[in-house]
Amino acid sequence: MTALPPIGLIENCVALALEEDLGLGGDRTTNSIFPANTQGSAVIAARASGILAGQAFATESFEQIEPTCEIIWHKQDGDPLNPNETIATIEGKIRTILTGERTALNFLGHLSGIATLTAKYVKAIEGTSAHIVDTRKTTPTLRFAEKYAVRVGGGQNHRLRLDDAILIKDNHIAFAGGIEQAITKARQDNGHMIKIEVEVDILDQLKQCLDHKIDAVLLDNMAPKTLKTAVEMVDGKIMTEASGGVTLDTVRAIAQTGVDIISVGALTHSAPCLDLGLDIDIADA
Amino acid sequence: MTALPPIGLIENCVALALEEDLGLGGDRTTNSIFPANTQGSAVIAARASGILAGQAFATESFEQIEPTCEIIWHKQDGDPLNPNETIATIEGKIRTILTGERTALNFLGHLSGIATLTAKYVKAIEGTSAHIVDTRKTTPTLRFAEKYAVRVGGGQNHRLRLDDAILIKDNHIAFAGGIEQAITKARQDNGHMIKIEVEVDILDQLKQCLDHKIDAVLLDNMAPKTLKTAVEMVDGKIMTEASGGVTLDTVRAIAQTGVDIISVGALTHSAPCLDLGLDIDIADA
Amino acid sequence: MTALPPIGLIENCVALALEEDLGLGGDRTTNSIFPANTQGSAVIAARASGILAGQAFATESFEQIEPTCEIIWHKQDGDPLNPNETIATIEGKIRTILTGERTALNFLGHLSGIATLTAKYVKAIEGTSAHIVDTRKTTPTLRFAEKYAVRVGGGQNHRLRLDDAILIKDNHIAFAGGIEQAITKARQDNGHMIKIEVEVDILDQLKQCLDHKIDAVLLDNMAPKTLKTAVEMVDGKIMTEASGGVTLDTVRAIAQTGVDIISVGALTHSAPCLDLGLDIDIADA
Amino acid sequence: MTALPPIGLIENCVALALEEDLGLGGDRTTNSIFPANTQGSAVIAARASGILAGQAFATESFEQIEPTCEIIWHKQDGDPLNPNETIATIEGKIRTILTGERTALNFLGHLSGIATLTAKYVKAIEGTSAHIVDTRKTTPTLRFAEKYAVRVGGGQNHRLRLDDAILIKDNHIAFAGGIEQAITKARQDNGHMIKIEVEVDILDQLKQCLDHKIDAVLLDNMAPKTLKTAVEMVDGKIMTEASGGVTLDTVRAIAQTGVDIISVGALTHSAPCLDLGLDIDIADA
Amino acid sequence: MTALPPIGLIENCVALALEEDLGLGGDRTTNSIFPANTQGSAVIAARASGILAGQAFATESFEQIEPTCEIIWHKQDGDPLNPNETIATIEGKIRTILTGERTALNFLGHLSGIATLTAKYVKAIEGTSAHIVDTRKTTPTLRFAEKYAVRVGGGQNHRLRLDDAILIKDNHIAFAGGIEQAITKARQDNGHMIKIEVEVDILDQLKQCLDHKIDAVLLDNMAPKTLKTAVEMVDGKIMTEASGGVTLDTVRAIAQTGVDIISVGALTHSAPCLDLGLDIDIADA
Amino acid sequence: MTALPPIGLIENCVALALEEDLGLGGDRTTNSIFPANTQGSAVIAARASGILAGQAFATESFEQIEPTCEIIWHKQDGDPLNPNETIATIEGKIRTILTGERTALNFLGHLSGIATLTAKYVKAIEGTSAHIVDTRKTTPTLRFAEKYAVRVGGGQNHRLRLDDAILIKDNHIAFAGGIEQAITKARQDNGHMIKIEVEVDILDQLKQCLDHKIDAVLLDNMAPKTLKTAVEMVDGKIMTEASGGVTLDTVRAIAQTGVDIISVGALTHSAPCLDLGLDIDIADA
Repeated sequence: MTALPPIGLIENCVALALEEDLGLGGDRTTNSIFPANTQGSAVIAARASGILAGQAFATESFEQIEPTCEIIWHKQDGDPLNPNETIATIEGKIRTILTGERTALNFLGHLSGIATLTAKYVKAIEGTSAHIVDTRKTTPTLRFAEKYAVRVGGGQNHRLRLDDAILIKDNHIAFAGGIEQAITKARQDNGHMIKIEVEVDILDQLKQCLDHKIDAVLLDNMAPKTLKTAVEMVDGKIMTEASGGVTLDTVRAIAQTGVDIISVGALTHSAPCLDLGLDIDIADA
Repeated sequence: MTALPPIGLIENCVALALEEDLGLGGDRTTNSIFPANTQGSAVIAARASGILAGQAFATESFEQIEPTCEIIWHKQDGDPLNPNETIATIEGKIRTILTGERTALNFLGHLSGIATLTAKYVKAIEGTSAHIVDTRKTTPTLRFAEKYAVRVGGGQNHRLRLDDAILIKDNHIAFAGGIEQAITKARQDNGHMIKIEVEVDILDQLKQCLDHKIDAVLLDNMAPKTLKTAVEMVDGKIMTEASGGVTLDTVRAIAQTGVDIISVGALTHSAPCLDLGLDIDIADA
Repeated sequence: MTALPPIGLIENCVALALEEDLGLGGDRTTNSIFPANTQGSAVIAARASGILAGQAFATESFEQIEPTCEIIWHKQDGDPLNPNETIATIEGKIRTILTGERTALNFLGHLSGIATLTAKYVKAIEGTSAHIVDTRKTTPTLRFAEKYAVRVGGGQNHRLRLDDAILIKDNHIAFAGGIEQAITKARQDNGHMIKIEVEVDILDQLKQCLDHKIDAVLLDNMAPKTLKTAVEMVDGKIMTEASGGVTLDTVRAIAQTGVDIISVGALTHSAPCLDLGLDIDIADA
Repeated sequence: MTALPPIGLIENCVALALEEDLGLGGDRTTNSIFPANTQGSAVIAARASGILAGQAFATESFEQIEPTCEIIWHKQDGDPLNPNETIATIEGKIRTILTGERTALNFLGHLSGIATLTAKYVKAIEGTSAHIVDTRKTTPTLRFAEKYAVRVGGGQNHRLRLDDAILIKDNHIAFAGGIEQAITKARQDNGHMIKIEVEVDILDQLKQCLDHKIDAVLLDNMAPKTLKTAVEMVDGKIMTEASGGVTLDTVRAIAQTGVDIISVGALTHSAPCLDLGLDIDIADA
Repeated sequence: MTALPPIGLIENCVALALEEDLGLGGDRTTNSIFPANTQGSAVIAARASGILAGQAFATESFEQIEPTCEIIWHKQDGDPLNPNETIATIEGKIRTILTGERTALNFLGHLSGIATLTAKYVKAIEGTSAHIVDTRKTTPTLRFAEKYAVRVGGGQNHRLRLDDAILIKDNHIAFAGGIEQAITKARQDNGHMIKIEVEVDILDQLKQCLDHKIDAVLLDNMAPKTLKTAVEMVDGKIMTEASGGVTLDTVRAIAQTGVDIISVGALTHSAPCLDLGLDIDIADA
Repeated sequence: MTALPPIGLIENCVALALEEDLGLGGDRTTNSIFPANTQGSAVIAARASGILAGQAFATESFEQIEPTCEIIWHKQDGDPLNPNETIATIEGKIRTILTGERTALNFLGHLSGIATLTAKYVKAIEGTSAHIVDTRKTTPTLRFAEKYAVRVGGGQNHRLRLDDAILIKDNHIAFAGGIEQAITKARQDNGHMIKIEVEVDILDQLKQCLDHKIDAVLLDNMAPKTLKTAVEMVDGKIMTEASGGVTLDTVRAIAQTGVDIISVGALTHSAPCLDLGLDIDIADA
């Protein structure tokens, strides 16, 4: 199983999410009706099929309200979900459960949505040697969480940030005066643990790349046929990444060209929420 | 035009977004190739049709990096966009433009996506008396921004938070011992500026609601025919809200039942990103 | 009992309060004299009569310093206090007790002061149908806590914030071109869960208000006689609020006019601190 | 004129205060009625007599909303105010003025209230050699601001925090085994820039203090006659501070005993707000 | 033993330190190889001789990652360390131990380095009556921690901050128009708990100081012979501090002049890290 | 010139540094003596030889206090400094200059100290093909700044964080069951932009590394002779890094073995502060 993001990031993010939902006064509906100490239990259940992601965020949402409430997970991040399957049981004060419900579900629905979409892409290329990766096109402030959800869904992460690795694009090449010059400058200024990838639009540019020891090449918006030629030119010497307008319909053909990596912005910027619900067992209340 | 969210929230949110993308070292690719003071200009352009939302977030993204860079907006929040139309021009250091690009576009794409989807729902019910509203199913930590985007798209906001208003649901009713009891408790505990809405599943419950001075009723997952009966029963005395599984296909029929309000969770939890791009005029560089 | 504010707000507020009192070095007097692990106990006692408010803030003040210290409350928020009555017992390290003492007492004294003053206003109108409410005239950064103390004292809260509800005042009316226009604009721009109140200075304005479906009217600085006429004009159709220069001497006469709501800024901006003290049982030390 | 607190503290405090008042949506009343760019002007005026304090907080409140709005101060911190006197003129967007109004006035009213009460104490002892000082009984999180207001009112500050200076009280003495032992321990552990004050209840204890080189003695709850004897015993060798239950009625008699310092908790924990108002010149709007 | 800094400062500082080391993804090496729940143990050991300081920071570093991991300390802050001596044992998840290792060691190494260097200075003046104190020349943002480490090493703290005490230097004297004028102004503006120290370069200035009741004099960059004369002039009436270019070679001669205090900037700005290491017992893993 | 760290990090770090030095009251000495608006100028000058680093931090220190003060830099980050050379001129209020002095100098001294030490190592290996790199042994919370200073001094950065790159050490290898297994696991779990380095103690391990496509090998604590053999074995196929106990005395011999990279922890954990001073031209005051 892929490792969780640093717990400090989860704590801070959940705290902000609760703050925006609770305001200065909290859940005034629930607080009017349920006494402070009424205990209860609830289940989180799937309303649609998908892949679970975000347990730690949901747990944190309830625990920040009531540190001793208990969340028992029947499914784990990465598990497939079918409609009506029980995902988790929560035991604590009813106020805690109802106050934290929306925040917990918003995290779970958003991250499971990303894991679910990622898993579809991964499944679509099953049997090929390609890997699905995400991009930096993430929802602002949630990158650490969304990149985690991609991993949960079976994808891999591209750069986490601008300071992780070098990705030389058209503007860099143009200003530097050519691919060679851009690579040279990038190498000079950066330590030995930094990979260099170059984005190319045409095969001519790819040829120039191969003369310089870079780590990967991003083949931008190329048709499968061109991609295939590119993969042959590269001949395993560096990693090849296909990128640009990849959809569930086109991804298999792309993977079959032999590229190593297929990056898909939609994983994080356009995954629909996975439908989940919370049901209280009122008998317990 | 709908008013911007508090500027302090925008500043804090953009600061977090830049922090996650820049890390400890910033845009190492760009910094290796472009000198610190090389000036340039760029345009942000639409790659698809939609409604613009998020100008202030994009402006803030560049200005936090370089306070004196200039962003000239050719389109305003709420304006329709066609593919290839120029949205804004940015003038400043090339390092600023490339370093801020992804954060600015991530905000613009996400918020414009929400405005665009909202506008589709609004258009779908054109000519009816209903209003499209959002829900609390927002992306965690971005609610203020997403609710703004809904307004930009022509929708209205439901509760901003749990402390804004009373929404009495099934669990509240069950524990209180009935709709009347729940309403009474809620009214006792809350000041005169707090509205009360009750969620009902069947018309019988609606009847009970009408006997108590509440402000709105949420008609949950009712078929258009039932909704119509409900609207007639209410007869304009309180606001009626249709909710549950509303889609672009079903929304018009729902609106035609005469309900005042139609709430759509998908506006904020499942709107796909609007495709936008940034092009640098390298001749300027 | 009124519900506590969100625990996250209490934690953050207490953390700031401890930070300002402890500085970089903490309680250097106590640290010089008491070894780190010397255990002790102390009681918090009333030095004057009043209503207790702020338990959670005091508990948090000690627990942030020493998570395992124990505070046993003999009185609860909302309980009346007489001089010398014991409110709470604290058991933990003497360093914890003395280091947290001032912060804990500052919260308790301030919030109990507000609850005490509120309770006096509430008692002064006993038997009438009016409610005492607070205003937005709160001590900056402490609104969530002060509004809670008002509720503890038996009052209700007016708007929590500027985004909760509409309160149309003279400037809004003047610019809009009249009461009707102002109400129309406010209604257009805001969702169905937002109440609208209009502030009026004279009965003529009140008449205009009654023609438009608003939720409440604020009768500003009117003499009891005028208030009475206003209440008759309104005839129960909307909520009536008396506001402006209300004192303990005048509040009963105002309540007897039949208004629903009386708002009192002094509850939060001018309540004197309730005198409380902490006594260590040195025999335990 | 007393120096302002560090600007960073003012900025952070105002940001929190605006955040609590603006919520996620800002001033929805004003935003519905006034277009974004409508300019206007307003004056802040006194509604009662007192001493002004808090200019920088009010300025910051408006400038955080609109950096280029202008606040012209006709009165300065420390100036006496009479009812209806104009304190400041604000020019900017009407939205800025109305959105920031309450936060700005809350700061000004609270801090001017403290300065005003302090000035009354200072005036009450005019002609004596005593100084009025505050205590650590401040409103949580606002100490830096309240201690500034005390200085503006002509008072002096006692310890800012627990790490500033040594104040040995009864519990410290009891545990240490006597005044001498407590002083010795305190001196051992603390650097040469830390003053030591000892709190005594009876003259016998004072005698013991005089044998050890301390800097000040706090004479707790002593009658003027006893205070006088104490002052004679001390004979100018160390600072003498009278403390405990000081009121405007009793302060002069206390000052006339010859004590150097009189500390008054009420300055910061029970000063009523100074009444101020903001009037918009709608003709400008 | 010297008291710890406020725990809130330690928590915040460790959180920032972990955040900068873990980034968005955490320890990807360890996470790839060790399953989430593999338990293990490790020891922290000295690699060089010195004085331990910073236990609480190391404990916090591991506990923020895994609240239930256990750190058993075999040495305490202030204990001397010899190479290869075991300092602490950690039991918890291997992921916790390896992820927190560098942050914990960076704190321990840095703070123990300061304590070690301080102890060398303290030892160098053994038998004299002087005390070693630090300065405000600390590593930005770590002052509270570094001043604690100085105390652990046997030194005392000079001012913690600019608001603790008065230190009148050449520029203050020049602008005020003389030492007397500067002292008078400083005394007027500041409360009775604030000490005043004056920095002098020559004995003539010292003479002027002695005529005004100040608390200490800083003798700047004086040769031992001059210092001795200064000490004789002062004759125990106020504290004398020698400052400027003090080294381990010169400190004893300075102490022997009879000065009370010797301040050494190098304690905090130039102490080399103490070499420590962490060894995992892989058999446990 | 190496690029600055993200400006947001500099702003936050300077804000914390000012906060710890100014406390609640600011520079009380200066504020007592200099009126608020007295203008002045000052120069920052070197007191020793070295390399300048940290301009932006010093500028920020003054500008956060007074946004319009001016700092003119006569030397730039990376420039060599000789004793008494003027580095910068500051013009603004005297209060600003004196209040910000220590914070600005603490940043400059610390970062210039690191750049200076780095430059010494770089110079010591001049003419060889090796590069000097830093480690993660940085002062907690200042890594972004210290890594920048290393670059200013002519060094390169190793990993910025634990999430940047893979560094497989002895514990990882032992648990994984061998070098091959560890590399395989690390590769599986991590995207294509992540480099893998393996730490080896003996040449046998190196041999195993060469069979798997890794990016770099860390040769831990090897004698120059062994290093030379290692370099020959590697034969340019991957990067070679020498690490462990490197000093200015030993670094050249190590470089001459042909290794690509030499990592030196002391650059950031033990660099002494560079001595700098600030002199006010009192004539200007």
